[in-house]
Amino acid sequence: MKNINVALLGFGTVGSGVAEAIRKNSRIMEDSIGCHFTISHVLVRHPEKYRDMDLLQGIHLTSSFDDIIADSSIDIIIEVMGGIHPAKEYIFEALNHHINVVSANKDLVALFGPEIMHTAMENHVNFSCEASVGGGIPILRPLHDSLAANEIESIVGIVNGTTNFILSNMDDSGVSYGDALRVAQKKGYAEADPTNDVAGYDAARKLAILASIGFHANVTFDDVLVEGIEKISQNDVQYASEMGYTIKLLAVAIRQENGIALNVYPAFVPRSHPLASVKGSYNAIYVTGNIVDDVMFYGKGAGSLPTASAVMGDVISTAKHILNHSTGTGMMLTETKRIPFYSSLKLENSYYFRLIVDDVTGVLSQIASAYADNDISIKEVVQKSRIEDAAELMIITEKTPRENIIHVEKALQVLPCMRQVANVVRVMEDDRK
Amino acid sequence: MKNINVALLGFGTVGSGVAEAIRKNSRIMEDSIGCHFTISHVLVRHPEKYRDMDLLQGIHLTSSFDDIIADSSIDIIIEVMGGIHPAKEYIFEALNHHINVVSANKDLVALFGPEIMHTAMENHVNFSCEASVGGGIPILRPLHDSLAANEIESIVGIVNGTTNFILSNMDDSGVSYGDALRVAQKKGYAEADPTNDVAGYDAARKLAILASIGFHANVTFDDVLVEGIEKISQNDVQYASEMGYTIKLLAVAIRQENGIALNVYPAFVPRSHPLASVKGSYNAIYVTGNIVDDVMFYGKGAGSLPTASAVMGDVISTAKHILNHSTGTGMMLTETKRIPFYSSLKLENSYYFRLIVDDVTGVLSQIASAYADNDISIKEVVQKSRIEDAAELMIITEKTPRENIIHVEKALQVLPCMRQVANVVRVMEDDRK
Ligand SMILES: NC(=O)c1ccc[n+]([C@@H]2O[C@H](COP(=O)([O-])OP(=O)(O)OC[C@H]3O[C@@H](n4cnc5c(N)ncnc54)[C@H](OP(=O)(O)O)[C@@H]3O)[C@@H](O)[C@H]2O)c1
Ligand SMILES: NC(=O)c1ccc[n+]([C@@H]2O[C@H](COP(=O)([O-])OP(=O)(O)OC[C@H]3O[C@@H](n4cnc5c(N)ncnc54)[C@H](OP(=O)(O)O)[C@@H]3O)[C@@H](O)[C@H]2O)c1
Repeated sequence: MKNINVALLGFGTVGSGVAEAIRKNSRIMEDSIGCHFTISHVLVRHPEKYRDMDLLQGIHLTSSFDDIIADSSIDIIIEVMGGIHPAKEYIFEALNHHINVVSANKDLVALFGPEIMHTAMENHVNFSCEASVGGGIPILRPLHDSLAANEIESIVGIVNGTTNFILSNMDDSGVSYGDALRVAQKKGYAEADPTNDVAGYDAARKLAILASIGFHANVTFDDVLVEGIEKISQNDVQYASEMGYTIKLLAVAIRQENGIALNVYPAFVPRSHPLASVKGSYNAIYVTGNIVDDVMFYGKGAGSLPTASAVMGDVISTAKHILNHSTGTGMMLTETKRIPFYSSLKLENSYYFRLIVDDVTGVLSQIASAYADNDISIKEVVQKSRIEDAAELMIITEKTPRENIIHVEKALQVLPCMRQVANVVRVMEDDRK
Repeated sequence: MKNINVALLGFGTVGSGVAEAIRKNSRIMEDSIGCHFTISHVLVRHPEKYRDMDLLQGIHLTSSFDDIIADSSIDIIIEVMGGIHPAKEYIFEALNHHINVVSANKDLVALFGPEIMHTAMENHVNFSCEASVGGGIPILRPLHDSLAANEIESIVGIVNGTTNFILSNMDDSGVSYGDALRVAQKKGYAEADPTNDVAGYDAARKLAILASIGFHANVTFDDVLVEGIEKISQNDVQYASEMGYTIKLLAVAIRQENGIALNVYPAFVPRSHPLASVKGSYNAIYVTGNIVDDVMFYGKGAGSLPTASAVMGDVISTAKHILNHSTGTGMMLTETKRIPFYSSLKLENSYYFRLIVDDVTGVLSQIASAYADNDISIKEVVQKSRIEDAAELMIITEKTPRENIIHVEKALQVLPCMRQVANVVRVMEDDRK
């Protein structure tokens, strides 16, 4: 039986998961593709931390990438160390040495995807990165291959585990944003500095990768307009629930007449929509195409073994290409052409407003005219709890362009009766046929 | 630009969808794979019915397969005529003439998948059939490729549109089974003779295909134990709803210690489970692997364009193989080995019983001892409406092997107080971590 040698760059959460997956399922992989995988090298910064690990027995453990690149027996390098440098340099060096690469590194792929792909193709080797979006969920390859006959109309993803854990917890247990964040940190779902996740940057990177594949273009992180979940309070979650919604951080790429709009934002998702049942550590990507209508891909968005499943899917597929002498073909993210972007200011949505106002007569008519002045129709008004002499108002608008919403927000802020525009959140519609 | 000639066998719902997809999105397909698709021939039984169709202008329309097989310019034959004969003969003839084949024919693939695949491989051409399960949903290829590193533990599918439409309608609108079936027939979702769908045979065929791929074995329709939805009444739907469930027809393949159990049956699905929100014409396939944990694929399970999306995904992938001179590689359903099947009698589930009993004292103790005698623990009892001197009892059991359930059903039937064992339905658990 043919042997495929792999080297792991990194042996943290994902790297050790890959080693465990290979140990656990080697017979299944042999049966299904007729070759055996051997981890020959593992690169880490601090080998001393790893020396006694059972999974690493018999494997060459090193802190020098030169040891790896110098070994001509390596067929596939698996980059699961993360970060831009030196991961980027290692990957380019590997490709230029005609070594196939599999990576889980969304930060890198969101910035340099097309450049990496072209280097791979020039060297007739594979570069693949299924694990960079949605953890274990098969999404990039199905989007690229199975949906290839479609003009993609939109991609809506719940692709960040940390924020989904926080929002689900706020919804299920009634805890505050701060408490939910602390629980997430304690459980290891959120970093000490959670900005990258809660501000939506991680979701934006994944959206850039999804959009590049779905819209056949070079989309990067900088093309995405980002809002995070930091302003979502328990009140918002509760009112959403009463109105039949749940709040999710959505990564949304949508085709408009003159371009693609790319946004990350929290939104009210109708409970009837399949995205509403995506809770906790689960992710999902909802894709609409002009032929297929809508499809959704759902599963564990992170974690050692689920992510290793996606990495090993790529490794097995690369091994098949090696056996068929067809590496360097059929790759994704090869487009370098830019596409026009549609101004997010023109994008239309329903919006939810939570307003704290003086509880005096005439307030509602002041507020109503602010909306009317900005051409915004109101769909629903709910007056909630009175706190002393203040009242809390929930307003849901009809579909309105973003720019009108920004204008009305400013107008509301300066109304005499206005104590606080407490939150403004988009409301997603369930427009499934 | 290279041209790929395709011939369509059949021009009904799916065939015309394929033609429309090619017309609509030819530019996108050209951009993404660098070749142009031309439909050169269309085979139907009654060409006169089709002659004036706009989509068929300039295409050679014929009722003779010989016209097609004789034309050496055809690269791919798309079989969307359905049925076993003569579809089977045409497919084998095409493959033996070294023509690639794409098919949507679940009946055929569920019976002859491995045989067809081997003929394709011997002739170094592709055979693919993504559209045969789940309409437009990318499932077979992702299950085979993206999840290749997993030992598949279970596959649970909602894969029949007709029954899902009927059950959703009963749940949403409170109509009877008979009325829901009539609506489905009127809307074209159900055939005049609905047996194939409502008795679960169609779902069983799709389960055989899914299980063949997921468990790397030759599984056929005959290996699946089938129960349909004919006995589900509005009462059951309503009580399920009150207890937090919705009823779905599930196709379930599950790995047990000594084999695979394959069943199609209606079941109570907890509303919190992602499968519960799969309504109407949507399908979903929920897969658990020992590395990836659980993933779900969701989308339109049928229809002209959605099904054409899956067909064209296969056609595009075959075109890539043609361009790379690699047809006949990487195919699914190649296993001819049989696997041991696990007796469905030993499979454990929670069960729901609906019993119509005399409304007299001592009834509950009679019934409780029938369960106890068969080693069945009761989780929940609800007494519902009294109709004259009868009472309706709902009983939910703890997990119990099927054979004990069959025994208790017999024991209950002969109890003096028993008027009717109105229904016995499995209850699915939400065991997501
Ligand atoms: N965790 C997930 O669930 C998940 C899901 C999807 C994608 N990813 C992506 O997968 C990648 C890895 O994530 P992870 O969670 O496994 O990270 P991690 O647990 O922090 O592990 C990182 C590993 O890489 C090594 N490493 C880091 N920098 C290095 C350097 N300069 N030279 C040599 N070795 C270095 C570390 O070794 P030392 O301990 O010696 O520093 C460690 O073994 C990231 O790109 C991440 O975004 C992760
Ligand atoms: N409909 C769906 O949504 C769907 C979804 C997934 C898979 N599928 C599968 O796709 C296949 C096609 O389904 P469909 O709904 O498109 O069927 P359909 O609407 O009944 O169309 C069948 C077509 O095949 C032609 N045909 C049938 N028997 C023929 C024969 N012996 N010789 C030549 N032509 C023949 C018919 O021509 P005449 O009109 O001249 O008889 C007609 O054009 C089936 O295998 C089905 O299971 C369908």
